Amino acid sequence: MGATSFLRRLLGGAAGSIERKVHELLSLCESLLAESGEYASTALARDALAAYQELDDPLRAQFFDALAQHYSPSPEAVTAAAAAYQGDPSSPNLLRLESAVEPARRELFRRLNMAPGGTAALVEMRRQVLAGLQAHSEWRLIDIDLMHLLRSWFNRGFLRLERIDWRSPASLLEKLIQYEAVHAIEGWRDLRRRLEADRRCFAFFHPQLPDEPIIFIEVALTRGMSSQVQPLLDIRSPVAPPQKADCAMFYSITNCQEGLRGISFGNQLIKQVAEDLKREFPHLRRFATLSPIPGFRAWLGKAGPREILARIEHPAWHLGDVPETLSRDLQRLCAYYLLQVKQNGEPLDPVARFHLGNGAALERLNWMADTSEQGIARSAGMMVNYVYWLAEVEGNHQRYFHEHAITASPLVEKLASECPLAMQEKGAAA
Amino acid sequence: MGATSFLRRLLGGAAGSIERKVHELLSLCESLLAESGEYASTALARDALAAYQELDDPLRAQFFDALAQHYSPSPEAVTAAAAAYQGDPSSPNLLRLESAVEPARRELFRRLNMAPGGTAALVEMRRQVLAGLQAHSEWRLIDIDLMHLLRSWFNRGFLRLERIDWRSPASLLEKLIQYEAVHAIEGWRDLRRRLEADRRCFAFFHPQLPDEPIIFIEVALTRGMSSQVQPLLDIRSPVAPPQKADCAMFYSITNCQEGLRGISFGNQLIKQVAEDLKREFPHLRRFATLSPIPGFRAWLGKAGPREILARIEHPAWHLGDVPETLSRDLQRLCAYYLLQVKQNGEPLDPVARFHLGNGAALERLNWMADTSEQGIARSAGMMVNYVYWLAEVEGNHQRYFHEHAITASPLVEKLASECPLAMQEKGAAA
Amino acid sequence: MGATSFLRRLLGGAAGSIERKVHELLSLCESLLAESGEYASTALARDALAAYQELDDPLRAQFFDALAQHYSPSPEAVTAAAAAYQGDPSSPNLLRLESAVEPARRELFRRLNMAPGGTAALVEMRRQVLAGLQAHSEWRLIDIDLMHLLRSWFNRGFLRLERIDWRSPASLLEKLIQYEAVHAIEGWRDLRRRLEADRRCFAFFHPQLPDEPIIFIEVALTRGMSSQVQPLLDIRSPVAPPQKADCAMFYSITNCQEGLRGISFGNQLIKQVAEDLKREFPHLRRFATLSPIPGFRAWLGKAGPREILARIEHPAWHLGDVPETLSRDLQRLCAYYLLQVKQNGEPLDPVARFHLGNGAALERLNWMADTSEQGIARSAGMMVNYVYWLAEVEGNHQRYFHEHAITASPLVEKLASECPLAMQEKGAAA
Amino acid sequence: MGATSFLRRLLGGAAGSIERKVHELLSLCESLLAESGEYASTALARDALAAYQELDDPLRAQFFDALAQHYSPSPEAVTAAAAAYQGDPSSPNLLRLESAVEPARRELFRRLNMAPGGTAALVEMRRQVLAGLQAHSEWRLIDIDLMHLLRSWFNRGFLRLERIDWRSPASLLEKLIQYEAVHAIEGWRDLRRRLEADRRCFAFFHPQLPDEPIIFIEVALTRGMSSQVQPLLDIRSPVAPPQKADCAMFYSITNCQEGLRGISFGNQLIKQVAEDLKREFPHLRRFATLSPIPGFRAWLGKAGPREILARIEHPAWHLGDVPETLSRDLQRLCAYYLLQVKQNGEPLDPVARFHLGNGAALERLNWMADTSEQGIARSAGMMVNYVYWLAEVEGNHQRYFHEHAITASPLVEKLASECPLAMQEKGAAA
Repeated sequence: MGATSFLRRLLGGAAGSIERKVHELLSLCESLLAESGEYASTALARDALAAYQELDDPLRAQFFDALAQHYSPSPEAVTAAAAAYQGDPSSPNLLRLESAVEPARRELFRRLNMAPGGTAALVEMRRQVLAGLQAHSEWRLIDIDLMHLLRSWFNRGFLRLERIDWRSPASLLEKLIQYEAVHAIEGWRDLRRRLEADRRCFAFFHPQLPDEPIIFIEVALTRGMSSQVQPLLDIRSPVAPPQKADCAMFYSITNCQEGLRGISFGNQLIKQVAEDLKREFPHLRRFATLSPIPGFRAWLGKAGPREILARIEHPAWHLGDVPETLSRDLQRLCAYYLLQVKQNGEPLDPVARFHLGNGAALERLNWMADTSEQGIARSAGMMVNYVYWLAEVEGNHQRYFHEHAITASPLVEKLASECPLAMQEKGAAA
Repeated sequence: MGATSFLRRLLGGAAGSIERKVHELLSLCESLLAESGEYASTALARDALAAYQELDDPLRAQFFDALAQHYSPSPEAVTAAAAAYQGDPSSPNLLRLESAVEPARRELFRRLNMAPGGTAALVEMRRQVLAGLQAHSEWRLIDIDLMHLLRSWFNRGFLRLERIDWRSPASLLEKLIQYEAVHAIEGWRDLRRRLEADRRCFAFFHPQLPDEPIIFIEVALTRGMSSQVQPLLDIRSPVAPPQKADCAMFYSITNCQEGLRGISFGNQLIKQVAEDLKREFPHLRRFATLSPIPGFRAWLGKAGPREILARIEHPAWHLGDVPETLSRDLQRLCAYYLLQVKQNGEPLDPVARFHLGNGAALERLNWMADTSEQGIARSAGMMVNYVYWLAEVEGNHQRYFHEHAITASPLVEKLASECPLAMQEKGAAA
Repeated sequence: MGATSFLRRLLGGAAGSIERKVHELLSLCESLLAESGEYASTALARDALAAYQELDDPLRAQFFDALAQHYSPSPEAVTAAAAAYQGDPSSPNLLRLESAVEPARRELFRRLNMAPGGTAALVEMRRQVLAGLQAHSEWRLIDIDLMHLLRSWFNRGFLRLERIDWRSPASLLEKLIQYEAVHAIEGWRDLRRRLEADRRCFAFFHPQLPDEPIIFIEVALTRGMSSQVQPLLDIRSPVAPPQKADCAMFYSITNCQEGLRGISFGNQLIKQVAEDLKREFPHLRRFATLSPIPGFRAWLGKAGPREILARIEHPAWHLGDVPETLSRDLQRLCAYYLLQVKQNGEPLDPVARFHLGNGAALERLNWMADTSEQGIARSAGMMVNYVYWLAEVEGNHQRYFHEHAITASPLVEKLASECPLAMQEKGAAA
Repeated sequence: MGATSFLRRLLGGAAGSIERKVHELLSLCESLLAESGEYASTALARDALAAYQELDDPLRAQFFDALAQHYSPSPEAVTAAAAAYQGDPSSPNLLRLESAVEPARRELFRRLNMAPGGTAALVEMRRQVLAGLQAHSEWRLIDIDLMHLLRSWFNRGFLRLERIDWRSPASLLEKLIQYEAVHAIEGWRDLRRRLEADRRCFAFFHPQLPDEPIIFIEVALTRGMSSQVQPLLDIRSPVAPPQKADCAMFYSITNCQEGLRGISFGNQLIKQVAEDLKREFPHLRRFATLSPIPGFRAWLGKAGPREILARIEHPAWHLGDVPETLSRDLQRLCAYYLLQVKQNGEPLDPVARFHLGNGAALERLNWMADTSEQGIARSAGMMVNYVYWLAEVEGNHQRYFHEHAITASPLVEKLASECPLAMQEKGAAA
């Protein structure tokens, strides 16, 4: 059979060093690729995935090595096709070049996807590739091919938005508890509070991963824009009538699938949820986040005024009365950090980058909004409200995208301009 | 905005000749492509598709012309990337070459797919491209890109098999009536008979085309292998108890989506249905078709013995008593046609090619099995049983695929060998 | 076993004349009743119903005879319990009397209802009882018990309203075609037109009869109140945008289950549908029927002026030009018939009785509104619009119910008062 | 309006002492009853139930008092109808008597059931009636009428069996935790263990109480018949492969709806679950319970030998080594208690009565099977396996039902016969 001879060539003298299980898996992959597309066998794909799932870590590494080394385009074939195209840049020659350039890996993955559970298995495979990338930089080639396909298969058009509530299956709710990455869910009672009438939870699902959320967002329906996160998370807080709310506070958003890292769903999710909530509660006036400023404290450590740093060195600096001057200075520094501190033209702070890039406006800085240990350590206790004004999101995003322009409220602008660092710059510029 | 300047370049002096509606659509396409992937807007995709669906035939042709001409890779970029790769065949250079080679069209289609109903719209778009291909050969480029994506999106893993019965939605059943391509369904009573207890109908569905079958197959559960099609189609035939059946006769299989032409689903569907039926009715012993021989009569007209042709010239030649010699000679010729008449190594007859390629065996020739006008005109009234022996399908397919070997019963082999044409060849060879 | 001795007593010397099958069924019924309630066996109930369903007409009649004769309360027991109560009208004695008075049949039916499909079987049983009632007046006792239970089980609270459209199962739609009693549905194309965007169809379903509508109503969404029925039924009529409609015309309402005759669902259905439509289309201003006057022509034949009768004797009297005087006189007579001709204080016309009793108002008389053969023969070609004013339905119904007061528009009142018969009465009264 | 005058009569001079809210509710009830059946208004029923649900405890008691006093049959009417029947025991007179005897309450409840949520509200109402029955014996009349209707509406035919697993809605699972009455569920982890692959949970549901289980049963699939309950409940026990199980142990069964007390579902549930499990796992050989003997210890305290009582007086008597003689004597006493100690001919032990009455066989006594505090206090640490032999259940039940005959294994029989108390009796008899 063709596959055998291919494998002989493929594995060459090295075949001895490849374990039997990996050899068998590669043999299944070859058989799968050897079919013409029309007949590619679901059974072979299923067997290959089963064999893959049997591998332990070292064997999987062997398999990934083989995938990275032997399923890339042949340089000779690419060179020849490139030369032919250069000689005659016709459409047929372009197609031949395209075909020469596409790795066999990609077609292999497409065919593995035919098996029941194939998509989930490939998402998991990419997770494993990513986990080993630092130690095996050559696996980047596998990652690129998986990413190419997953991006296409997890296209927005294939996702469906679903509301999650207390009537959802326990097996799904259990996953929220497990995945939540922003404000940990402390058991079922905590989760239940987050699904009461004045809370909302939405997730994207994909038809091929029916029981797995792709990304989920938690929303609180409030009167007025929240300035502190602890009250939102308090499981003993009374349930407010949602009809009276005028704000939807997005207080947590979590990507669930490590194997889909780099494919962004958050932007689409926020916009869709805001539209759906607006339809259900027409009197909602504001869609806002209550977000951390995770890079602030680290930046401050490097760039902040020494006398301020001295005053917030002690882990308990925020307990008791904080002098107003310190509070004022920290807020100015934070506003400055958010608006002025950039990297490649974009805000240094990753959360700011995400929401401002999405088209949100930086509305308000909240003093002592997150007094948890992590809130103090990373954001000096402050949090930000980014607001999604439905009518302006698109324009804001365009201006951000083309000019890196940031939309902020006058209040935040003023705070930033009063920051000593801004003063210095002005002075320097004058 | 960037898109405008692009369009100016794109359309150049010719802009005047492009209608406003097409211009607007192209402008939407540019905006959609201009976004970075993460922000590509569902709203823009929806608007673009809506604008596309507004176009009449001549405007659509203008749009397709623009798609074919202006969204292909730039020869300069490809040449430069090819040269860089030739100079240094590294992975990054290969990726750059791959990227240079991929048409912008493909990314455009991926983004259009984000809109609600996007996949269905692209399937329809491909149907329209295919319909115009003869007159516009340059649209082949569009077809190639759509085919590339649709093949990936309509991967077996994304399809689900569903049984269709009299409890299915009328809106779906109506489509069966409309699509059925082999034995036309004459209204609701006919359809109802085909969904009774001794009949089965299955279809593949795709999550993005929830109300549209992709392909469907009709099966009769019978005692003994059917040798005539009219009794199977008779709406007044009594309903037989399915538990007593020992054969599943696949008597009709129809591809529903012209826009998915060239993506083969039949092979997968037949295998899956056979497995499912075997599970439901463990006593089924044979899974067979009752198939036309659509190319026989035309081939006979060219290659058949003159005296035989003379005897079947009259459209009513088959009515009344047909002499046994004529019947015998026609069967021999037909067996010879199916087994020996090839094109590029494969059977000339398209239905034979499909089933034998799938791994079926040519089991039996049935005299006067389809006496409809079309049956006489195309197959001289004969039909064939191809049998899918579950344990041998894979082996048969492999042998067909690698050696073009055909599996046939001794009886059919014998008929073919007794054919005068086969005799001549033997004589000639001797 | 107890049941045998009971049967011996029950059937007495007559046992010989009872067929074996009926005897077996009665024996099953006895076993079922012999259990204490808690253990009453689903299996016995299922067997009994199966045995019942096996009976042909004459055997079923034997079974009904036995049901009617032997499952009634024993007069001795009733008399004794009555005497005890009369002696001491205490609660326990009342309960004993109640228990003595309840027929064993009723408990038997309750237990038969435990079997899968039991409710449907009892509905069918009542249909058969009703069908034989004229010939077997003693079966009335069976009917009373079935009616008592079915009325309780088909309580409004157990019914759910569902919309029926072209996506409904074909098996259900087929039943609409079969059941429709007002304006016959001429095949699937006719049905499809009645389910387009400007039409609505709703039905009540019961959890125990999942595939069977109990009652259904057909509605047309129109601009202006329809005055003719043929345009509503025209399958070639263009589909109007439902958002522009200001009237919902109830043009057909059909009770589907003969076995539920006498349990009225129409009143509840109309009110619920009107409320639901109002929610979906807030701009609907009128909910009206277009109804026949089925008793008019028959009444006219008896009570109408001879010269008028002479002019409408010929079946084609309405073709060509109808003299205005005739038209005017007929309309006056019809209005008089609807408003003044009573039986037991209520309108003689059954359709008028239904809608006016429901709380509708008699709004308008439509000349030549139904020119079908039946329309001419029964209603002299006229139809009536009864309007359900949501705010007044309850009040109208109360006034009808307590005082037999009819709500009619001034126009119809005027027509009625101008009728020669009304004049005579007035004259007579004066 | 009729209702007002009725109320005046109803409430008479006492009207002053009835609170306004109760008065309004009674007025709604009157209006509801005043309608003819066909028009009885869903809206009125809804309003009446809403008004009822507003009442606090004292007002509800007033309402129940009114229901009990004023909605019973009038003695005069009953007496008159009874006399008429005695004079002429005809069918019409019987019907009239039946009608006179039926309380208006019952029709009122039927009409309240028309409202959305009506059935659930009436189940709750009965719960409240039952709760007050001891203090208000006259409410027994209300209970009788509710029971009559609920028994008919919660007929086995209207219930559907559903499996509950970890994919069920959290809102439903939460109710299991709350309702479980036999072995308390200690939070979500405990529940999750009870829903793993080697456990099953089933419940009956009613269409009108969609989110409320009526009764549920918990089953463990085991190898061999369990003799101890703690291992079954251990949340850290490994999950066994269900295909290898040969026993289904019913270890907990809970009635959920206090308002349905007295309507028995357990017998039907056990039989149905056993049949369903047998279909899914054909190799299951035994369907058995592991049941407490809740009345044993109390009976022993009264009837047991003094020297034995002395030895088990201390709450920790079972810790450490229990002398074999004590163990043997207690088992003999327990077997004797189960087989010989009767009340009205049936076993004194309520659990024994339930299972033996259902047709189960008393198979085995298990020493130290439940060492929980309650297990020791009520059952002296022992538990019993009752086995449901599918082929014998019906026969056993019949023999129990007609002769109070108990089916027990020879081993248990022997234990009972060796009990000193049995010896005494024998001696006494001899």
